Amino acid sequence: MKKIRIAIAGYGNLGRGVELAVRQNADMELCAIFTRRDPKSLAVKSETPVYHISEAPDMRDKIDVVIMCGGSAKDLPVQTPEMAKYFNVVDSFDTHAKIPEHFAKVDEACRISGKVGIISVGWDPGMFSLNRIYAQAILPDGRDYTFWGRGVSQGHSDAIRRIPGVTDARQYTIPCEAAMERVRNGENPTLSVREKHTRECFVAVEDGVDKTAVENEIVNMPNYFSDYDTTVHFVTEEELKKNHSELPHGGSVIRCGVTGDGHRCVIEYKLTLDSNPEFTSCILAAYARAAFRLSRENVCGAKTVMDIAPSYLHSESCEWLRKNLL
Amino acid sequence: MKKIRIAIAGYGNLGRGVELAVRQNADMELCAIFTRRDPKSLAVKSETPVYHISEAPDMRDKIDVVIMCGGSAKDLPVQTPEMAKYFNVVDSFDTHAKIPEHFAKVDEACRISGKVGIISVGWDPGMFSLNRIYAQAILPDGRDYTFWGRGVSQGHSDAIRRIPGVTDARQYTIPCEAAMERVRNGENPTLSVREKHTRECFVAVEDGVDKTAVENEIVNMPNYFSDYDTTVHFVTEEELKKNHSELPHGGSVIRCGVTGDGHRCVIEYKLTLDSNPEFTSCILAAYARAAFRLSRENVCGAKTVMDIAPSYLHSESCEWLRKNLL
Repeated sequence: MKKIRIAIAGYGNLGRGVELAVRQNADMELCAIFTRRDPKSLAVKSETPVYHISEAPDMRDKIDVVIMCGGSAKDLPVQTPEMAKYFNVVDSFDTHAKIPEHFAKVDEACRISGKVGIISVGWDPGMFSLNRIYAQAILPDGRDYTFWGRGVSQGHSDAIRRIPGVTDARQYTIPCEAAMERVRNGENPTLSVREKHTRECFVAVEDGVDKTAVENEIVNMPNYFSDYDTTVHFVTEEELKKNHSELPHGGSVIRCGVTGDGHRCVIEYKLTLDSNPEFTSCILAAYARAAFRLSRENVCGAKTVMDIAPSYLHSESCEWLRKNLL
Repeated sequence: MKKIRIAIAGYGNLGRGVELAVRQNADMELCAIFTRRDPKSLAVKSETPVYHISEAPDMRDKIDVVIMCGGSAKDLPVQTPEMAKYFNVVDSFDTHAKIPEHFAKVDEACRISGKVGIISVGWDPGMFSLNRIYAQAILPDGRDYTFWGRGVSQGHSDAIRRIPGVTDARQYTIPCEAAMERVRNGENPTLSVREKHTRECFVAVEDGVDKTAVENEIVNMPNYFSDYDTTVHFVTEEELKKNHSELPHGGSVIRCGVTGDGHRCVIEYKLTLDSNPEFTSCILAAYARAAFRLSRENVCGAKTVMDIAPSYLHSESCEWLRKNLL
């Protein structure tokens, strides 16, 4: 059977994760890596050929799906609609507030090219969104809760790194067990931001820096930390590298509701991930399969995870799935 | 906006649950209850008109979707294909081994009538199946675990009731916490049937019955109990009614796998239900919405939960879902 020909656009944490994820899927092959850097400068793990991203359009007949691995802030808003002119694309655009705008731009490009563009694929947005939709549809009378962590928030780590005197930092978002237990018990509590999560920071600073001042700056930082109970640990750069170089994450989407005569019901979807970017990469690979299959059925346009039937993601046939997993 | 006109076929635990579930969905109205019994004999909770099931075909222009609420053993294999001649239908057929055969029969009827028939809707098969499919697609290298309970197994309760001298019984399936913890920790254990679940039975017997003999008969019953550690409590009928008249259930679908460089990953979908039939009813109602929408798009044929995109289940529009839940 012909394999699904995948390309990666962007070779950071996510791109490297997709490179590994494609290897786990026997019906896919990685055919190209597109980069904005000098292709020769890329230390690629596999034997995959590397091209400058400007060469991508020439490969339009050699690639079935391009998995977009750039950042949501600056890369994807431009790159995904551009690539959708030539290829079926999948991206992990995660700026929640701008999803409708991004969807419209990708949809426009796909309508012209006749391609499929699946946006905002990952775990949040992505699998968490799906679980909110399923749970709300099943339990109209209910309440949603999302807890994140324990995991590294790259945005919060970066915010700490921008403080003068800080040389490196890692921030963990930690869900409050007590709050989660109340939710799981069906208490339907109203929880403040502070009651749901705490934040723990591991920070390396230059010699002679006033640690108390840095700590105050962190815990009082608006938007990022001031609404949370935050703990700051000062550590050496070596300790950061040794004990905090991984990117674990996870979390739970929980809906508590009532059925019929007032019986309680709790639906929980929980992820525990040793590697956040690798897990996102695995989801991107599964949705690349869906993009390929939809395109083969002459579907075109922008899609999100909620528009795609589960069977499109799995490598086996519908007959097999009915027989074995239903 | 015109509401989705729902009918129920069969008025047992599930039918009564669907009657309540429809009330929770503002875009639906319950228009008819079909029964094989004398319609006048039915004590219906709502004002819904009751008809003999033989009158159903005459109502074909007045109903959008019939939710089939009969049993999987004898009712649904006949009733679902029959009703699919006239209506879009949704059922909760749960005899796993016979799903392909049931699918084929419903599909044939739907192809002729041009209707949609969604089969095996519920939580297992149903939401648990979906979660197996999603998790396998995302983590090709991994292992699946399903734990059921704590909850009442009606099949096991019935098996005890068939023992001479037993007047009533309730059997709870209990997942082993220790085994679940090993799975959640990513140990990927190989678990025997006995290690995954225990069984607890509450049994009322006639006066003078040899309880030791009854207990032995229960714990050694092949298929049902002999492979499990089973506890039997003898109680009065009053105690059974007072403390064991509800039908709670639930369980977890867990997949443990590895991403990329061997990082561990655990995906868990967990249900805690005070009322098993009411929860199944809520899922049936959501998929009735999907059947209605698919039919409006001129789709026909048999479907299962894996063939249906999540957005079809939710009462809000795709635009709303993208903006609010993604």
